[in-house]
Amino acid sequence: MYTLKKTASTTKARLGELKTAHGTIETPIFMPVGTLGTVKGVSQDTLADQIKAQIILGNTYHLYLRPGCDIIKEAGGLHKFMKWDLPILTDSGGYQIFSLSDNRELDEEGAHFQSHIDGSRHTFTPENVVETQRILGSDIMMLLDECPPYPSSYDYAKNSMELTHRWAKRGRKAFLEMKPLYGHEQAQFGIVQGGTYKDLRIESSKFMADQDFEGIAIGGLSVGEPIDMMYEFTDLNTDYLPKEKARYLMGVGTPANLLEGVARGVDMFDCVMPTRNARNGTIFTRNGRVNIRNAQWKEHHDYLDPDFPSDLCSKYTMAYIHHLIRNNEIFGMVLASIHNLTFYLWLMEEVRKRIADDTFGEWYPGMVERLENRI
Amino acid sequence: MYTLKKTASTTKARLGELKTAHGTIETPIFMPVGTLGTVKGVSQDTLADQIKAQIILGNTYHLYLRPGCDIIKEAGGLHKFMKWDLPILTDSGGYQIFSLSDNRELDEEGAHFQSHIDGSRHTFTPENVVETQRILGSDIMMLLDECPPYPSSYDYAKNSMELTHRWAKRGRKAFLEMKPLYGHEQAQFGIVQGGTYKDLRIESSKFMADQDFEGIAIGGLSVGEPIDMMYEFTDLNTDYLPKEKARYLMGVGTPANLLEGVARGVDMFDCVMPTRNARNGTIFTRNGRVNIRNAQWKEHHDYLDPDFPSDLCSKYTMAYIHHLIRNNEIFGMVLASIHNLTFYLWLMEEVRKRIADDTFGEWYPGMVERLENRI
Repeated sequence: MYTLKKTASTTKARLGELKTAHGTIETPIFMPVGTLGTVKGVSQDTLADQIKAQIILGNTYHLYLRPGCDIIKEAGGLHKFMKWDLPILTDSGGYQIFSLSDNRELDEEGAHFQSHIDGSRHTFTPENVVETQRILGSDIMMLLDECPPYPSSYDYAKNSMELTHRWAKRGRKAFLEMKPLYGHEQAQFGIVQGGTYKDLRIESSKFMADQDFEGIAIGGLSVGEPIDMMYEFTDLNTDYLPKEKARYLMGVGTPANLLEGVARGVDMFDCVMPTRNARNGTIFTRNGRVNIRNAQWKEHHDYLDPDFPSDLCSKYTMAYIHHLIRNNEIFGMVLASIHNLTFYLWLMEEVRKRIADDTFGEWYPGMVERLENRI
Repeated sequence: MYTLKKTASTTKARLGELKTAHGTIETPIFMPVGTLGTVKGVSQDTLADQIKAQIILGNTYHLYLRPGCDIIKEAGGLHKFMKWDLPILTDSGGYQIFSLSDNRELDEEGAHFQSHIDGSRHTFTPENVVETQRILGSDIMMLLDECPPYPSSYDYAKNSMELTHRWAKRGRKAFLEMKPLYGHEQAQFGIVQGGTYKDLRIESSKFMADQDFEGIAIGGLSVGEPIDMMYEFTDLNTDYLPKEKARYLMGVGTPANLLEGVARGVDMFDCVMPTRNARNGTIFTRNGRVNIRNAQWKEHHDYLDPDFPSDLCSKYTMAYIHHLIRNNEIFGMVLASIHNLTFYLWLMEEVRKRIADDTFGEWYPGMVERLENRI
């Protein structure tokens, strides 16, 4: 599924291609998150044509609860339901069960939880999340895992990792036994866990490397640990992951985090940050981060970045955007969401160019510094 | 400013053109409401290119409070602030003072009120609303009036109307004395009041007809009175309004209301209904009104109206739109807002065609019936 095209000479950055049933993705790539079958505030046309998203994410936990599997199955899968013809990756719901549901319990069988919507009771097992993702029809599905909180004791992290490994075997078996529903192939990614313990992280990387998953995700990071620790473990994990498979760092992150992840050999990223922060007025630019709600922008009748191809940057003034966001106008949230995603995808395109001409290693530290500015 | 091109043979419907500094408007027309310098949920590009809005509304009361006159003046007027090159009409704020502000008092000088945002105290006078609208730079500005509540006693309605008439003279004087700020001409419309009393309505129509306003609005209707009473007074008012000036029925209404208004000689309409109701899931179509939140749409995997040119009707299924709106997804609100406005503007285009070929009189009663269906 993954083809490694080039490795940078001074970092672990990789240029590659990921073939899916709905098209080929150039990596490194950022995947906008479309929790409920919509990337919040952005139309599918804008995502494809303007933002140039190559793949988006859907959340199994959320889609399972709303609209529910019956509706998506009747529609012929998530692609048809939401009219999105490019690749989709779905998570397994594991992370949401632990972060959203009020009342959850874990045992060997799976995760038992109460819906955060109506309190109804459900169980996700390694097998039925495969079944659900067959119904969703995503191009890439994820295993059910347990994401241990940070910090976790060594014993907790070890037991949790071992459970995730046993679930991985069950999930893969189910994947091989259950056929796709809509005539297109799906891939399945394993997920490395192990908390913040080196030996566990190495053990989990090796374990996942030994299975026949089509790609491997690095899970359990970006959950509250210090940023250097996230970089350290990402670096450690990719050392033990096979070169011929795509690596996906789940739930990461800021633009600077993406560059640091790429430098450590990551190919795929997803995060709600560009859209969630947009709605609150945080704008990511190539010169740093802007809080458009700040009073300094109230009378700023200029453009934020006249050469950047987004309406927020080069069509409307900062004073206008400030006014929209301060007044919670939908159009302000939409402009900011489109901009932030356009910026994330632009950044990844820059990254790919820099790896291709082998200037990534010298370019990215300065770029990280710029990206971390507060304007 | 207004050119009457044709009058229907069996109704009072009129086909006309309204020339403004930012372009010529074909009438009858519906004006989308852009309260705070944005038509809620819709981009300016979509408004112009897809919805085919010819003129939009801005609210003086809201823009005066947020972002404030200083900001708009620095930007060079509302057109430049919001990047909208087509005509803009601004109301005077009179209606909002009475419907929104917590604490208001009226005297001969003007309307004293507390901001609904921060409780600060302000006064609108017939003169200073002209000044504010010179700053906004709208193509058409409105007089300050008092909109009496329904029901009002005869004495209240009479005194209120007489005050509105005295304010009209002061407002016109101010308009003639204060020059435009940005090099383009602005027009000023008078507003007929008189509550729900025939003699007052006639008196107010005659009074406004005798002034030299560029157009005349029918105010004080659609404020809670029975619908037949609104039609009756609209009909009465237009009998006394000059044929050579545009007539604008303020704050109206449903698609059926628009047709009934056109039949009674109205040229211009505005209302928040298409966007406000869209956000709650009410969709207007040529076959009637749909509440997309209803459970009947949950598993309806078909299009609402495959031949109607909006994404809501012909790109996404009802089940998907239902899912978006039920989950308060921004994209659902955006799709519904764009659709409803596209529908309103489409309807007015149909109206103009029907007046042009003189089939309006036979067509509109059946269409009103269809539009009032609940699907």
